[in-house]
Amino acid sequence: MTTISKELSASLQARYGHSPDVLDALNPTIETMLQHRSVRAYTSQPVPANTAELLVAAAQSASTSSNMQTWSVIAVTDPGRKDRLAKIANNQEFVRTCPLFLVWVTDLARLKALGNDRQKPHESLNYLEMLLVGAIDSALASQNAAVAAESMNLGMVYIGAIRNDPIAVAKELNLPPMSFATFGMCIGYAEPSLTTAVKPRLPQSAILHKDTYDSQAYKAGVESYNQTMDTFYAKQKMTPLGPWDLHTLNRVRGPEAMGGRHTLMETLRSMGFEIR
Amino acid sequence: MTTISKELSASLQARYGHSPDVLDALNPTIETMLQHRSVRAYTSQPVPANTAELLVAAAQSASTSSNMQTWSVIAVTDPGRKDRLAKIANNQEFVRTCPLFLVWVTDLARLKALGNDRQKPHESLNYLEMLLVGAIDSALASQNAAVAAESMNLGMVYIGAIRNDPIAVAKELNLPPMSFATFGMCIGYAEPSLTTAVKPRLPQSAILHKDTYDSQAYKAGVESYNQTMDTFYAKQKMTPLGPWDLHTLNRVRGPEAMGGRHTLMETLRSMGFEIR
Repeated sequence: MTTISKELSASLQARYGHSPDVLDALNPTIETMLQHRSVRAYTSQPVPANTAELLVAAAQSASTSSNMQTWSVIAVTDPGRKDRLAKIANNQEFVRTCPLFLVWVTDLARLKALGNDRQKPHESLNYLEMLLVGAIDSALASQNAAVAAESMNLGMVYIGAIRNDPIAVAKELNLPPMSFATFGMCIGYAEPSLTTAVKPRLPQSAILHKDTYDSQAYKAGVESYNQTMDTFYAKQKMTPLGPWDLHTLNRVRGPEAMGGRHTLMETLRSMGFEIR
Repeated sequence: MTTISKELSASLQARYGHSPDVLDALNPTIETMLQHRSVRAYTSQPVPANTAELLVAAAQSASTSSNMQTWSVIAVTDPGRKDRLAKIANNQEFVRTCPLFLVWVTDLARLKALGNDRQKPHESLNYLEMLLVGAIDSALASQNAAVAAESMNLGMVYIGAIRNDPIAVAKELNLPPMSFATFGMCIGYAEPSLTTAVKPRLPQSAILHKDTYDSQAYKAGVESYNQTMDTFYAKQKMTPLGPWDLHTLNRVRGPEAMGGRHTLMETLRSMGFEIR
C-alpha cells in the first residue's frame, strides 16, 4: 500500500469503507467527484441566471459518438410542469421543489428531420445500435453537467423514474417521434439540514478487472459490501433495507417491480424507434 | 449579453465558434471539461502505477441507478490483447499504442450470478430497460473517469468501434453471458506534436430547450454549425468531409455503413440479453 494524503484517504474511506491502493493525484476535480452524493432536498433559493447554459456548455464538451450529437436537454423551470413531471416520476417531491429540472433526451429526431429536409436516407436510426448511441451520448453529456453543478456547490440527483411513462413525459415536453426522455436531473441548493453522507460502493475488486474479466471476483466483494452498507446505515441511523445483495435482487425480481418500465420496448416502438 | 471573463470567453469560442450567454462561474473542473479534446496519438510513456484505480474511484463515485452498479471495467495493458482489440476496433492504431485501454462493460452478469447463488428471481434483467440501465450506468461511470484523467493531464478517447464485434471482444476479455463491452477508452499521455484543437459543437439553440422541445430550433442551428465546422477545418488545415449535416447523414444512411453494428440486437440476444 502506497502512502496517500489524508484528504484522499478520507474521501476513499467514505466511498468504500476502506482505502484502496490508488495513485495519489488528488485535485479539485477528482475531489469534487469523490464527494458526490445525491441531493433529495432543496432550498427555495433559485439557481443563478444562465446556470443551465453553463451546465450545457460542460455537457456539450463531453465526447459524442462520431460527433453526431444525438441528444437534447430540456430545462424545466415552470412550476406546473415540474409538478406534473413529479407525478409521473413516482411523485418524488424534489422534482417539484428543485428550482431547475433538466430532462436529458435521446434525440434521433433531429437527424431524422435533417434527413427528411435534405432528402437523404437515414435508415441506421432504426437500429438498436443508434438507440444505445443516443442513450450513451445523453449520459456522457449529463454526467459532465452533474460534475459541473457539484463543482459550483449546487446539488443534483438523477431521476430514472421519468422512464415509468415515456409517453406522458413526451406529451408534457412536446417531444417529437424518435426522441425520448432518458432520465431527469434535479439541480438546486441542498437543504443543509438534510444533507446525506457519501454512499459507499462495491469494492474495486468486484468492479475493476485486470486484462480479463474474473467471474468469481464479485463473491468476496459482495460479502464485504453487505457489511460496509450495514455499518453505513447504522452510522446514518437509517433503517437498512436488508443486505445489499438481497435488497438489490428484490429490485430486479420481475416486471411487477419495474414501475411500468417492463413495457419500454413496446412504448419506444410506439414513439418511432423501430429498435431492429 | 453579460460580461464574462476572458478565460471563459476563450473556452466558449473554441467550443462553439461564438460565446453563448452563460453564467460566469468558471472553475478548474469546468475549465477541464471545456478544454476536452479526443487524443488519438500517445507517447510511449506509461501511466503512473495505480492510475486505473484512481480513475475507477472517480467512476464509482458517479450516480448509478438504484445503487445497482450494473457495470464493470477491464483495464487492458497486455500488448497482445490491445493489438487484438485494435484489430476488432477498425484497426485504430491508438488502441494498440495507448498504455492503458479501459473497456467499459454493461454488466448484468453480476446480478444474475448473485440471483443464482441466493436462489432469488431476477427476471427484470431480461428487459430492454435493464440493458439501458447498464449502458447508462457504464457511461456515467466512464465519463467521470474521462474527466478525472484529463484533470491529471492525461489524454483519452472513447472507442465505440469495439461494438463492431461484441462476441470477439467478449471472447478476448472472457466476459460472461449477460455482459457486453459497451465502449472502450484509450488513456495515456498525448503526443504533443499531434495534439488537436477543441472541436466545436452545435450551438446551444439546437440542443437546449426551455420548458418544452422546440422542433424547429435545429434548423438555424445546423446552418450556423455547418459554417462553424467549415471555418474549423480550414483553420486546422484539415480536409472537411463535407458540411456536418450531409456528412452525418451519410454516416447514418443505412446498415451497410454501420460497421457490423446493425446486427447488435441478434448479437446481444445470443450473448444472454433477452431484451424483451
